[in-house]
Amino acid sequence: MTNDLYQSIKWENPKLYIIDQTKLPEEESVIELVNAEDVWDAIRQLKVRGAPAIGIAGAYGFYLGIREFGGSSYSDFLAECRRVADYLNSSRPTAVNLSWALNALVEKVNQNEDMPVPDLKEMLLQAAISIHNEDRELCKNIGLNGVDIVPDNARILTHCNTGGLATGQYGTAFSVIFHAHQKGKVKQVWVDETRPLLQGARLTTWELQKASVPHSLIVDSAAGFLMSRGKVDMVITGADRITKNGDTANKIGTYTLSVLAKEHGIPFYIAAPYSTLDMNLDDGSEIEIELRDEAEVTSFNKKLSSPKGTKAYNPAFDITPHQNISGIITEKGIIYPEFETNIHNLFSNVSD
Amino acid sequence: MTNDLYQSIKWENPKLYIIDQTKLPEEESVIELVNAEDVWDAIRQLKVRGAPAIGIAGAYGFYLGIREFGGSSYSDFLAECRRVADYLNSSRPTAVNLSWALNALVEKVNQNEDMPVPDLKEMLLQAAISIHNEDRELCKNIGLNGVDIVPDNARILTHCNTGGLATGQYGTAFSVIFHAHQKGKVKQVWVDETRPLLQGARLTTWELQKASVPHSLIVDSAAGFLMSRGKVDMVITGADRITKNGDTANKIGTYTLSVLAKEHGIPFYIAAPYSTLDMNLDDGSEIEIELRDEAEVTSFNKKLSSPKGTKAYNPAFDITPHQNISGIITEKGIIYPEFETNIHNLFSNVSD
Repeated sequence: MTNDLYQSIKWENPKLYIIDQTKLPEEESVIELVNAEDVWDAIRQLKVRGAPAIGIAGAYGFYLGIREFGGSSYSDFLAECRRVADYLNSSRPTAVNLSWALNALVEKVNQNEDMPVPDLKEMLLQAAISIHNEDRELCKNIGLNGVDIVPDNARILTHCNTGGLATGQYGTAFSVIFHAHQKGKVKQVWVDETRPLLQGARLTTWELQKASVPHSLIVDSAAGFLMSRGKVDMVITGADRITKNGDTANKIGTYTLSVLAKEHGIPFYIAAPYSTLDMNLDDGSEIEIELRDEAEVTSFNKKLSSPKGTKAYNPAFDITPHQNISGIITEKGIIYPEFETNIHNLFSNVSD
Repeated sequence: MTNDLYQSIKWENPKLYIIDQTKLPEEESVIELVNAEDVWDAIRQLKVRGAPAIGIAGAYGFYLGIREFGGSSYSDFLAECRRVADYLNSSRPTAVNLSWALNALVEKVNQNEDMPVPDLKEMLLQAAISIHNEDRELCKNIGLNGVDIVPDNARILTHCNTGGLATGQYGTAFSVIFHAHQKGKVKQVWVDETRPLLQGARLTTWELQKASVPHSLIVDSAAGFLMSRGKVDMVITGADRITKNGDTANKIGTYTLSVLAKEHGIPFYIAAPYSTLDMNLDDGSEIEIELRDEAEVTSFNKKLSSPKGTKAYNPAFDITPHQNISGIITEKGIIYPEFETNIHNLFSNVSD
């Protein structure tokens, strides 16, 4: 039994260490990042990936970028902060967590005009550490909240990658599995390989190995067969976005799992941070589905798997309607149906 | 519009030409087989694959093996026939169609003791041609029988490979699609890539290209999303075995498609020769599911897609219960529910 879990990002002052995800699963390589350029490159090359992990790495990268600023002028320092933030943001301009973290750090400097530069630097380091710790804590709480709904000797089916590689630690759906396994409740995890990008095959299996959780890899289309043979007790997946009524966008294939779970009377849970709830969207029909590069489907592991010129249709996500969801596990507790009311209430309580 | 369809096996006396399936989809290579050794090798190396196609190739290979027999003694010729049959059968000992064809040919010699050797040889060639023609005719009739149930502007989803590569010509589910397309009824075919062996990606796309049928490749787990968006009008797959009550064993993933089709009110059809009906089995619970090599799931094209040592669970088939099936398209007509009665009646009529 593992007592604690690997972290894909570690800060050892004044260096950042990350697991190079481009080398997984063949090789577990930890690389050292000592300046903003290293971090920019790591984000750009997808050595660090997953929205929360990118935000965390970006925050540390920001500190690495400003820590050797030589002057003592506040306005010069603020200008340098803005330059470093813009620079790091350009590594992956669409990563929301990255721009959020960088903006938050610059804003801290903006609001502390009277603080000497060395103190500002220290404040920024502490802020980066906080962003990291808060994400770890959040993920841990998702896991702890989910433990109770996992039955004893559970055989859990999961999809895509939801573990600590993409977050500060623990992940989301993976955190539930990890913490339930710590309590001795997990007999087996079925890992969907998750075509086209094989996040399940490449990353989730690796994470389960690190956590010593028993698991087997399956092709995505075998999930229905396993359920029909009584080999699955519950399904847990992550979420990319959840609307006001509980409709959930997640990796392509999630919707199919929800239909199969319903057909077989198997509980189907989503695990995601509270921030995944998008109160600007009424329901799943308002979520635009990203169509990705056809080559992801026409090839496998970078080798062509279909005749040259074959067309493919490659939706990255699908929408699981709230009717198919047994509960949404967040760091603030589990939301059960009726989702619209309970999500609304959760938001009301939190804003109190 | 293509007026007729490629054949993966062609006899041009005295040579056999086959499409080398190990070269697909990268390359369309037709190879010439001039003796039994060539055919043995082609079957062994999976250059020709698919149960009916192996039987057909084996029958021609048998003729190629005995055609240069020099003697005129019936008993010597019979002994040579047995030797050649045993030899060819050893190329793929578990291929039922192969041993069936070879046994049938030897039996013909056995039953014609009075026939001169040159006439026996000619009889054997004609028998091989008949086996080939009967399979083509059977597949054509499956297709023609299925045309009526295909709606205009149909968007058809299919799984695995069911076309002419594996049969004399046309295939099974593919034959329905091909003949419906000839009538201008097919708007689009969605091709499941069909993990783990990617028969859909590698072979079905190639067959649809040859037949000029518009198609797009999808990952298996995208089928549910397509259905939820109203992009699928019907599902047609093949079958490996059908029991007395209509339960159907077919490639892993077929069951999931049937559940999804039911959820969305989409017709779900099986297309298969009458010989696929196994009247020795009452229902699907009596069909043993073959578990195949874990490496098919943990890798692709010999490249690992998961960490070393990852376990996988790899059922080759699943069982679609008859309740999920709208109809079974055979060369003798379409069988509709209630299947147990209608299958029974079909067998009674045929044996009249």
